[in-house]
Amino acid sequence: MAKKIIRIDMAKLEATYEDVPEKWSRWAGRGLTSAIVVDEVDPTCHPLGPNNKIVIAPGWVTGSPAAPSSGRTSFGGKSPLTGGIKEANSGGLSGQKIAKLGIAAIILEGMPKDNKWYSIFINKDGVKFEEAGDLVGMGMYEVDEVLWKKYPNKPAVIGIGQAGEMKLSNAGISVNDPEGEPGRYAGRGGLGAVMGVRGVKAIVIDDTGGPGVEIADNDLFKQGRKKLTAAIMEHALTKKDGGLNAFGTNVLMNIINEAGGLPTRNFSAGQFEGAAKISGEAMAENIENRGGVGTTDHGCHPGCIIKCSSIYPNEEGKPLVSVIEYETAWALGANCGIDDLDYIAKMTRECNDIGLDTIEAGNAIAVSMDGGYLEFGDKEGALKTFEEIRKGTPLGRIFGQGTEATAKTFGVYRVPTVKGQAMPAYEPRAIKGIGVTYATTPMGADHTSGYTIAPEIAGVGGKVDPLDNTDKAELSLTFQAATAFIDCSGYCLFIAFPILDIAEGWAGMAESVAGVTGMKVTGDDVIAIGKEVLKKERLFNEAAGFTTADDRLPEFMRNEELPPHNVKWTMADEDLDKVYAWVHED
Amino acid sequence: MAKKIIRIDMAKLEATYEDVPEKWSRWAGRGLTSAIVVDEVDPTCHPLGPNNKIVIAPGWVTGSPAAPSSGRTSFGGKSPLTGGIKEANSGGLSGQKIAKLGIAAIILEGMPKDNKWYSIFINKDGVKFEEAGDLVGMGMYEVDEVLWKKYPNKPAVIGIGQAGEMKLSNAGISVNDPEGEPGRYAGRGGLGAVMGVRGVKAIVIDDTGGPGVEIADNDLFKQGRKKLTAAIMEHALTKKDGGLNAFGTNVLMNIINEAGGLPTRNFSAGQFEGAAKISGEAMAENIENRGGVGTTDHGCHPGCIIKCSSIYPNEEGKPLVSVIEYETAWALGANCGIDDLDYIAKMTRECNDIGLDTIEAGNAIAVSMDGGYLEFGDKEGALKTFEEIRKGTPLGRIFGQGTEATAKTFGVYRVPTVKGQAMPAYEPRAIKGIGVTYATTPMGADHTSGYTIAPEIAGVGGKVDPLDNTDKAELSLTFQAATAFIDCSGYCLFIAFPILDIAEGWAGMAESVAGVTGMKVTGDDVIAIGKEVLKKERLFNEAAGFTTADDRLPEFMRNEELPPHNVKWTMADEDLDKVYAWVHED
Repeated sequence: MAKKIIRIDMAKLEATYEDVPEKWSRWAGRGLTSAIVVDEVDPTCHPLGPNNKIVIAPGWVTGSPAAPSSGRTSFGGKSPLTGGIKEANSGGLSGQKIAKLGIAAIILEGMPKDNKWYSIFINKDGVKFEEAGDLVGMGMYEVDEVLWKKYPNKPAVIGIGQAGEMKLSNAGISVNDPEGEPGRYAGRGGLGAVMGVRGVKAIVIDDTGGPGVEIADNDLFKQGRKKLTAAIMEHALTKKDGGLNAFGTNVLMNIINEAGGLPTRNFSAGQFEGAAKISGEAMAENIENRGGVGTTDHGCHPGCIIKCSSIYPNEEGKPLVSVIEYETAWALGANCGIDDLDYIAKMTRECNDIGLDTIEAGNAIAVSMDGGYLEFGDKEGALKTFEEIRKGTPLGRIFGQGTEATAKTFGVYRVPTVKGQAMPAYEPRAIKGIGVTYATTPMGADHTSGYTIAPEIAGVGGKVDPLDNTDKAELSLTFQAATAFIDCSGYCLFIAFPILDIAEGWAGMAESVAGVTGMKVTGDDVIAIGKEVLKKERLFNEAAGFTTADDRLPEFMRNEELPPHNVKWTMADEDLDKVYAWVHED
Repeated sequence: MAKKIIRIDMAKLEATYEDVPEKWSRWAGRGLTSAIVVDEVDPTCHPLGPNNKIVIAPGWVTGSPAAPSSGRTSFGGKSPLTGGIKEANSGGLSGQKIAKLGIAAIILEGMPKDNKWYSIFINKDGVKFEEAGDLVGMGMYEVDEVLWKKYPNKPAVIGIGQAGEMKLSNAGISVNDPEGEPGRYAGRGGLGAVMGVRGVKAIVIDDTGGPGVEIADNDLFKQGRKKLTAAIMEHALTKKDGGLNAFGTNVLMNIINEAGGLPTRNFSAGQFEGAAKISGEAMAENIENRGGVGTTDHGCHPGCIIKCSSIYPNEEGKPLVSVIEYETAWALGANCGIDDLDYIAKMTRECNDIGLDTIEAGNAIAVSMDGGYLEFGDKEGALKTFEEIRKGTPLGRIFGQGTEATAKTFGVYRVPTVKGQAMPAYEPRAIKGIGVTYATTPMGADHTSGYTIAPEIAGVGGKVDPLDNTDKAELSLTFQAATAFIDCSGYCLFIAFPILDIAEGWAGMAESVAGVTGMKVTGDDVIAIGKEVLKKERLFNEAAGFTTADDRLPEFMRNEELPPHNVKWTMADEDLDKVYAWVHED
């Protein structure tokens, strides 16, 4: 049975099942969300207006049996934060369930005429709309709990917290995890506000009795899956008890700090004296010492074999939050001068509940500290900002808009953003390649768009000097293209570590995609296919008014030296402009 | 004695007198501020960073004896509101005094290393820096009073209120008027914040004993001046007891309302049922009935012969505020659904005191009403927002950022801005030509950049149908170019009315400029010279990252019909793009 697109019109409260048109048939995940956004959303439309859309799509292999760590769901639209195209993807339950219902994508469009709030229930029998006034004002922990009580079969819940209801530019879209908690986020770029504009508080997906994912060539699929699984299980970073499994992504805290690339106190230094106290090692220690529910061996979706997630308990061993990613611990920790893991955990839970991207939230707090609103290190003050956001006070709405709005409010010039989106946990002055990614990706400052940290810091996929500009433009483009492919596949980005080092893994990824889809894809096609996606996104942004002037890091990084290496951002504009020059040449 | 440029470096607290280089020697006013900004300010710099500058320049004829209504001062820099180049000009005392000191321009650059606040005193003997901690936190009424007490000879005072101190994007630069009050503003685009970044609370200018303005060809100057004066005194809008003199600019309230082009309740209608109550006629009636200091025959600078300003008294006949312009009465009145002139007067005084542009302030209040923060018509609530801004509360800082920030905060989609700057008092759906100006001028939505209202509504310079798109692109360009020339001259823009209708006046303007400067300028050169200025500004904006996507009116105007004409914005993008196509063709 061919996959369908569900188009949900919130103005009419109608859902229609459409065949996937030829022009989109090759795509899934990010490739599909970006294709639909490019074809259906006017690049000059107001992100919070009636003509923006939310597109939700699982990847090529998502939901296929035992494809390892392949449960990603892509969310696309025009970003209220950047004004450009946005794809943010998430783990959790949604991708596999959407795919197993035979759905290629959900397109959410229009606005309810009555200004009411709705929840949407999707199962094998169709789409049901329900008024959701009872859910309004609820945080996502409660929403997820209520909806699991209401619907059987532990469905996927895609939802927005209070931030999305208020249409704040830092509102993310939550996806529940296997425990039914909202720890998984399509966080970046404010797509939660775009869902809020549609009047949708939650989408519930029950795949019971669904047709499952069709496999075009089962032998090829199995062959690819096997190679990829072997590579994941072999690589030091992704194997059982390897770096990610033992300490989560926060294994990076000490490593990046050691490299002098840990942005500290709003990007004023590259090392934080409190790094060890908020590191993955410290997390693991607390989890072990506190006993109870805590674990470092937690997967964000069924079928993950890396299991980089964890459940962090409070001091009594009761569940506090899953998960504190490295970028989260950094944003709410080092970047704010805060070295208390329990406060970071509490703030992370607040983000998950209110529906906020942790990276943007932490940066907003940090610029407010730079502007004198709070002192660096004021963990009580930082925690209280979330109360303000939840209540929608004026101060809370400022923070909920993200970093640039907060910086403007407090008259701050040191604003670590690109295209309106705040930088993640890697200092571009000390790690040049990631700076190229921040500057040039269509997504705004985003590490996941082209994670050159792999060769620059982790020695994965080769080893290059992080402080050297040479060839970084090319390196970033290669990573951006490979990432775009992985973001189409539904595989977690962390398969990049093993497949960059183990050639059989790279080939296996492509073969598994070819096996599921029937497309003739090999490892040799990955970069070219990824570039197709990037080109679409880039052209959308150009039509939205972006130029190379938007492909720049903030001015202060060119002017201020970053300790301990005492380096500035020195990449020539011409080198940055090379990264996407091919879009108009090819 | 050749004119000099004063370069003031706030990092070193040093002022240097420089010869005017050849490349700038033709320019004054807006032509000079824009030339200097283009040459010295990196278009990609952060507007609140160390590399932005404030440039202050009187016009070609400013300060020359008895050039009628010629006291304008141009202020230039990169705008924190739009991110593009900005020139905002003001009446008041500053232009003539700067010119009479033989100063072509003041360039204010750098930031004090000690984060202290300074005032700067300039007279014939040079430049003095003084710590101004005592002025910090003061509104402009008090600042102006204190500085007139401190310095003899009733000097010009250029200053910023609390908004500029807080570096808010809607902070304007105040200039005192002949009574020593801060009613004159280079208001638009947030240049007050850029002055605040420089650590300058006020610049005091005493021209006593200055060399005066050199006249290259006195006969030609006198001839031009005579023609222009005659035209001004003949034209119905500018003559003694004519429209502007009798009722001020607010003579337009009833006229624009009648035309269905008065933006009402955040641009949701084109007529306001309370228009008559806030009109120039109502103002004049209050002034007459209340007696006391009120007058409708007030000039904003010595030598003005139009005298469109007024002093509006409170109910006891005591001075309340000078001046309530039409755009102010509209922004704080009709656009907020407020029909009480005394509240509008109080809010105007608040803007003058805190240092805010009234147009942006009123639009910010209106979008907050659209977002449900206040009810339309809530005059008490509207007035209170200024208290919040003055105190720098989070809510106040939101409003002080202007319209887009306020709209984002309250999740509003109907945002009447172009390039981040709010629209003035003319509905582009009902008056198409002004929409072209809003869309395409390098300044962001700005009526003074190309006032096609003259032929579209007032029947000045011909009569065209406001509802018709035909030829409006060309019309707007002609007005934008003529305006750019007038903004170089130092003449008030209101001379446009007589010179558009009376050919001798047009020629006289050019001759007076030629007479003062010695340049060979005739009426035939006006448009070409204006286009030179526009081209510089346009190219700056392109380098800052602007594209034709920024030359668009907001989406809602294409989607929503405006009563009473029930018209949408229907101008084709290609027609808008024609307005500045010549920049890359000529």
